[in-house]
Amino acid sequence: MPTFVQILDFVGTFAFAISGIRLASAKRFDWFGAYVVGFATAVGGGTLRDLLLDVTPGWMTDPIYLICTGLALIFVTMFGKHLIHLNNTFFFFDTIGLALFTVVGVGKSLSLGYPFWVAIIMGSMTGAAGGVIRDVFINEIPLIFRKEIYAVACVVGGLVYWVCALAQVDDYICQIACGIVVFLTRILAVKYKICLPTLSGHA
Amino acid sequence: MPTFVQILDFVGTFAFAISGIRLASAKRFDWFGAYVVGFATAVGGGTLRDLLLDVTPGWMTDPIYLICTGLALIFVTMFGKHLIHLNNTFFFFDTIGLALFTVVGVGKSLSLGYPFWVAIIMGSMTGAAGGVIRDVFINEIPLIFRKEIYAVACVVGGLVYWVCALAQVDDYICQIACGIVVFLTRILAVKYKICLPTLSGHA
Amino acid sequence: MPTFVQILDFVGTFAFAISGIRLASAKRFDWFGAYVVGFATAVGGGTLRDLLLDVTPGWMTDPIYLICTGLALIFVTMFGKHLIHLNNTFFFFDTIGLALFTVVGVGKSLSLGYPFWVAIIMGSMTGAAGGVIRDVFINEIPLIFRKEIYAVACVVGGLVYWVCALAQVDDYICQIACGIVVFLTRILAVKYKICLPTLSGHA
Repeated sequence: MPTFVQILDFVGTFAFAISGIRLASAKRFDWFGAYVVGFATAVGGGTLRDLLLDVTPGWMTDPIYLICTGLALIFVTMFGKHLIHLNNTFFFFDTIGLALFTVVGVGKSLSLGYPFWVAIIMGSMTGAAGGVIRDVFINEIPLIFRKEIYAVACVVGGLVYWVCALAQVDDYICQIACGIVVFLTRILAVKYKICLPTLSGHA
Repeated sequence: MPTFVQILDFVGTFAFAISGIRLASAKRFDWFGAYVVGFATAVGGGTLRDLLLDVTPGWMTDPIYLICTGLALIFVTMFGKHLIHLNNTFFFFDTIGLALFTVVGVGKSLSLGYPFWVAIIMGSMTGAAGGVIRDVFINEIPLIFRKEIYAVACVVGGLVYWVCALAQVDDYICQIACGIVVFLTRILAVKYKICLPTLSGHA
Repeated sequence: MPTFVQILDFVGTFAFAISGIRLASAKRFDWFGAYVVGFATAVGGGTLRDLLLDVTPGWMTDPIYLICTGLALIFVTMFGKHLIHLNNTFFFFDTIGLALFTVVGVGKSLSLGYPFWVAIIMGSMTGAAGGVIRDVFINEIPLIFRKEIYAVACVVGGLVYWVCALAQVDDYICQIACGIVVFLTRILAVKYKICLPTLSGHA
């Protein structure tokens, strides 16, 4: 039986892969290209984190991420036209993925002995760097640099984790608090159209 | 005396570097930029593989790859205009490189104790990721995501390696079979214009 | 009290971060995006070097680089319009950063036992790869591949380091000579508009 966290991980990976595959298909990528972009979107953030932390990337130890991306590709291929009606559902799943990946990234870094400020960066990278790699592959300016509260939600969640830990709250509660804050920060930011200001542009 | 494999490695590196340098020159890169793009095309895939496998990248242990890229740059500078007549030759050498790099990548991963499904990904990365880095540097959508059987040939070759190994064929034969299949898959796919389908494009 | 090298490191990091933040602001990135681009410009070269050398990236051991990038962001936000008058100053600081980062990269690689030809590449990467990552993030062809003597100044400085070391000059003197040569090479190249030739462009 998969655990609750494993189910969330699968849902998040699936949603991230879907986002990569849909953007790739909009650029007329072939199946292989779409698969690679979907996979990189799903596991790219965790891979960058693991390279920096000098541990073996998680996807190299369990083929579930490859399989999950394959299912996402089949899903997009079958329901391509109708997926637009599911945008709210994907947004929901994607935000679950963002929250879970942040918690996993922070927790993994702390367990390896890194200080909290490094762990928060690693958590944010786990959540957000896959989308940057996706946008580099499809040759667009990374979306998260220009629009929406996205990686910032990870940073806020990571700070909440830190505050909870400082208050000597049980680690399990810290993680749940972090995940919920990431989730709510993004949902509320999108609902109320909260953005960061852009810079004025004098290069 | 260089071994047969070393000669193939040199030929493949040379062909990969040429491909990077020619595309860089089409974008008006200077000599330095063209050299870097050529080098990244030639060794980028192996470097990404070695970072993921946590071993020292091969080009940092032997200057032959730097020298080979330098020769490729001189070659393109001297024969720039006439290279287009050699396109078939380059395609042939490039495909030799693709086949050899795949075999090397699969073999290295297996010798480090990784399972076959990881080794096949590493083999494909060794062959194909250099071209992705090249295309990111010249600010184009990676060619292998949209056109031609390329990385897919590596995957097919890797699967053949696996099947041979499962059948307890001698490792040396597995490698030759893998290389020949990569080579033929790409040659035949180009000859008969076999492509993967593209996705329908509803982002 | 910070040492002289620490002050140069701070100045160089600040200048590199400013360059990333200004280019990001010209593309209408938000604060977060500009911060990330500035940070990647400042530490990206050293991070790539440390991944290749298999050591923990320097910025993960000391929060000073995060703080320095934050100050650079505040600086650009406050003085955005007027920064253009400081272009010569930034060019000066940026070149100090380039020189110092090269020396640090060469020295770190040598101290880990790598041969000189690897150390020179690592020094040049430390100085120049951050700018490449910056340009990938803002979706432009990397500037250093097309214009100006930049990474080539690092290579020249690295070669001077090598010659000094071969002549059994004290390591401290080697480093100063390397840094001065990088600095002067770039300053003189810009002053006298010295460029590398571009390739003729027949892809």
